[in-house]
Amino acid sequence: MEEEQEKENEERKESEQEERTRKKTIAEHGEDEKRVDEKMKNEHEELKEDEEEKEGLIGRVKEYMKKKIEEEEEEGRYRLLLLPILFILKGSPVTADPPNVIIMLMDDMGWGDLGWNGEPSRETPNIDRLAAEGLTVPHMYTAAPLCSPSRASLLTGRLPIRNGFYSDNTHGMNAYTPQEIVGGIPDEEVLLPEALAARNYTSGLIGKWHLGHRDQYLPLKHGFHSWFGAPNCHFGPYSGITTPNIPVFRDDHMLGRYYKDFAIDKNKGVSNMTELFIQEAVEFIERESSKGPFFLFWTPDSIHAPTYSSPHVRGTSRRGRYGDAVKETDAGVGAIVEALRTQGVDNNTLIFFSSDNGAALVSKEDGGSNGPFLCGKQTTFEGGMRAPGIFWWPGVIPAGSVSYQVMTHMDLFSTVAQIAGAEIPSDRIIDGLPLYNSLVHPELEILRPVFLYRGDRLMAVRKGSYKMHLWTFSTPTDELARGINFCPGEEIPNLTTPIPTNHTGQPILFNIEVDPGEKYPLSRFTQEYSKQVTELQQVVSDHEAQLVPGEPMLNWCDNAVM
Amino acid sequence: MEEEQEKENEERKESEQEERTRKKTIAEHGEDEKRVDEKMKNEHEELKEDEEEKEGLIGRVKEYMKKKIEEEEEEGRYRLLLLPILFILKGSPVTADPPNVIIMLMDDMGWGDLGWNGEPSRETPNIDRLAAEGLTVPHMYTAAPLCSPSRASLLTGRLPIRNGFYSDNTHGMNAYTPQEIVGGIPDEEVLLPEALAARNYTSGLIGKWHLGHRDQYLPLKHGFHSWFGAPNCHFGPYSGITTPNIPVFRDDHMLGRYYKDFAIDKNKGVSNMTELFIQEAVEFIERESSKGPFFLFWTPDSIHAPTYSSPHVRGTSRRGRYGDAVKETDAGVGAIVEALRTQGVDNNTLIFFSSDNGAALVSKEDGGSNGPFLCGKQTTFEGGMRAPGIFWWPGVIPAGSVSYQVMTHMDLFSTVAQIAGAEIPSDRIIDGLPLYNSLVHPELEILRPVFLYRGDRLMAVRKGSYKMHLWTFSTPTDELARGINFCPGEEIPNLTTPIPTNHTGQPILFNIEVDPGEKYPLSRFTQEYSKQVTELQQVVSDHEAQLVPGEPMLNWCDNAVM
Repeated sequence: MEEEQEKENEERKESEQEERTRKKTIAEHGEDEKRVDEKMKNEHEELKEDEEEKEGLIGRVKEYMKKKIEEEEEEGRYRLLLLPILFILKGSPVTADPPNVIIMLMDDMGWGDLGWNGEPSRETPNIDRLAAEGLTVPHMYTAAPLCSPSRASLLTGRLPIRNGFYSDNTHGMNAYTPQEIVGGIPDEEVLLPEALAARNYTSGLIGKWHLGHRDQYLPLKHGFHSWFGAPNCHFGPYSGITTPNIPVFRDDHMLGRYYKDFAIDKNKGVSNMTELFIQEAVEFIERESSKGPFFLFWTPDSIHAPTYSSPHVRGTSRRGRYGDAVKETDAGVGAIVEALRTQGVDNNTLIFFSSDNGAALVSKEDGGSNGPFLCGKQTTFEGGMRAPGIFWWPGVIPAGSVSYQVMTHMDLFSTVAQIAGAEIPSDRIIDGLPLYNSLVHPELEILRPVFLYRGDRLMAVRKGSYKMHLWTFSTPTDELARGINFCPGEEIPNLTTPIPTNHTGQPILFNIEVDPGEKYPLSRFTQEYSKQVTELQQVVSDHEAQLVPGEPMLNWCDNAVM
Repeated sequence: MEEEQEKENEERKESEQEERTRKKTIAEHGEDEKRVDEKMKNEHEELKEDEEEKEGLIGRVKEYMKKKIEEEEEEGRYRLLLLPILFILKGSPVTADPPNVIIMLMDDMGWGDLGWNGEPSRETPNIDRLAAEGLTVPHMYTAAPLCSPSRASLLTGRLPIRNGFYSDNTHGMNAYTPQEIVGGIPDEEVLLPEALAARNYTSGLIGKWHLGHRDQYLPLKHGFHSWFGAPNCHFGPYSGITTPNIPVFRDDHMLGRYYKDFAIDKNKGVSNMTELFIQEAVEFIERESSKGPFFLFWTPDSIHAPTYSSPHVRGTSRRGRYGDAVKETDAGVGAIVEALRTQGVDNNTLIFFSSDNGAALVSKEDGGSNGPFLCGKQTTFEGGMRAPGIFWWPGVIPAGSVSYQVMTHMDLFSTVAQIAGAEIPSDRIIDGLPLYNSLVHPELEILRPVFLYRGDRLMAVRKGSYKMHLWTFSTPTDELARGINFCPGEEIPNLTTPIPTNHTGQPILFNIEVDPGEKYPLSRFTQEYSKQVTELQQVVSDHEAQLVPGEPMLNWCDNAVM
């Protein structure tokens, strides 16, 4: 066992070295977001200054990274944690010919709903092919466990607590934009299509919006050039007397309303809306491919209860009506990829596929699957916020690759802007990181925290292999009594608590890679616990020290009902 | 909605037609196993009579099947349930040159431990590649939720209740062959290597045996020509005074003992046994490939607690020591496939990859994952008996295919015998079906029941989309009190019962395709419930009417301790 002893010594030494370098990196470059932001601002200004110099800088950064990677590989180190964060962020792919970008954001689809992620019926061949030809990111987090704030954060690169998609008159409760709410996305927020406009992107939204339904909040007021879809979920039918049915828009004009003009048969689970969203996407690609770079945000919502599918799809899944909705969406993914190929722009298009939050387990057998993860939508357990993460860009992103980088949807804002050569706003905190280099060098891994909020409350933080719960909350007691359950069949003592429970004094810590189901908290009597909790508490206090919450747009009971 | 109405009528008609045909098929061919067995016996005799006539018959059967498949495809029917079962079973691939067969049976590996089945760390690239190049069977069941009976059943094609791998002095309790037990595999049983001997196969076992450790039960007495491994699990170290350490054999000679001569460091989770099992397998392939057909049963047991891996692997997984053991086994799969390619026999070798039972959740964070399934090893919930199922045979089995056929490990006995052209014993009930045609035509699907036993008790039956629980039992109360838990963090009222609970009067029914996690029992007030339970109860009473239990070999307390 001499060999073993030697290995252990070596590991300890490596780990100590890593720790020292990490501390040094933090000291030099900061995980202090403001400073990272400052640095990024400086970088961007530098980059703008001189095109040739920029090319040279990027070339040097790339060379440095290549050398670093080779060195790391020689040493056989498992994770490349030592790469100074700035070097990773710096390798910007600014080109004269920026790629098209398609973000496909499913609605309430669970991590475990993909054949690629182990769904036993394996009914997502097109999405699975996207993954096989692209990059899988198993540690992809949404920015919130609920539709509206999740979407607002993806498009702004900022946490709901910053962009206003939360309430401050309830605590630790999610909020969104239903029919009755008055709030929406503030004009001050810079949305991804607005950032891309400077690089001459044409941006289209096809599907659900959910960032506010009053006139000033609609997509064409926030950077999108075209829109086909609805501002809210397809709930209803409503009586029309006090509450009208949800409208369906073409650009800035209402075409009609769900249930009335756009049929949804809730009992049978039938509607051809997804068919329309697929057709619109294909036509968008046909129309825009020859013109210049485009950004398509494709957000069909048939997987959200009440689920539906087109008549020719309904009844074909082995998983019932939920499976039918998934199957039709998967076919849409296939049709979109096919359209890119037909137009000859597949090698110049980046696709990102994900879902806005975990599967809604409240829907029971009519809902999706979060695979091995705990609980579902509404919660900050893994089942609420871990989402599928697939990047596809043939010829640029290595096929069949996996990145263990902990990512959040907010990185999409920064990464797409980076790839497009667009400016990332420097006058505010952006939570997303520009991670182009992580897409093309999947072996890179930056230690960065992801903050998991429920409403206005920071519930948990994930960093590296660890997740620390400061507060826990599953289904509120009164909802449980009404048969609503965010964690059906699951119960972890002291964790799936039906009332908001404060653990800040003694946080609950998981090694989330060893225990993705959050079942076995690390003992607080271990060195591992002390070390990690101390570090994570520092991360949290740094985060909170500089947090200036945005004006809450979704407060309850100011004509807004959850 | 006219279209919808029409579709519904059509579906109803189809479903009625299916039902009639099913009944007719049952009436004609029986799900009565004795009769199926009789038919199979007749078939095999017919097949033996005349080589030319057989070729002609197979040709005609194939032609018929092709026509049927085309017809079915034209009608757009989703499942080919109407194909008379005998035609499916008849399409035997008897050739002059039967293929090599490798069965890779992992120990306590869970369904969810494969990247292919959604394990987030995706550390099984070689097994995943096997699946991508072969056939995935998501509905693969083990024959028992515990090692010994599961293995005995795979090798005999017969349920533990028939081949004696159970106890009858405890009820609904699993039993296996630990150090102290006197029982083992009876001489009367025909094991797969014995069946294959008539077709000149050379059979080797590399790894754990677990079918009895007394002399008369050892592998070379039951058809294997060579063996490297141990008769039992690598438990220990034992004092050696009352209980010696587990021996390691080469063929019929003891080489030494675990912990003493073959080092296992339980605390560090280190041993090079898997390395030896990989090396032995590669050498077996190098030795046998040129000689004639071989059967290799590869059963490394490092994934069974106490898990271990070789020094160069230990510490490399993101999942801790369990993940290390999985990673090393995965590398072994890669080495074996590589050896087949080097020897040029990859196109003439069938590989089957699986695990002997679900992950042992009692091991907590040191155990595996059953993905979306309920509970684990020891139970008849899906997590106890649903196992990975991958078939690989380049050029014969279509790459990247999925079969929804409900299969059991016992089918391996019959299917491998069928493929080899070996005789399936006709003097006894064989629970496995010869399913060669399901491997090469993955779209085929036979409605057949799978019986899920725990010890001597029939707990549940799976057929088509449905699973009916007659008895439920999770962790015994006294073990729960000792911190043992087969269902940690999971609790389904009336289902995960800590005492054996009789539901035969009012069975619990799941649509296991819609609800793979067994969380939402179908209401007993529905037509679906009445129809399915009536049908499944008939299946159970037919099964029980003809059941003649074998002599129990694993009774407790006749020097046998569980």
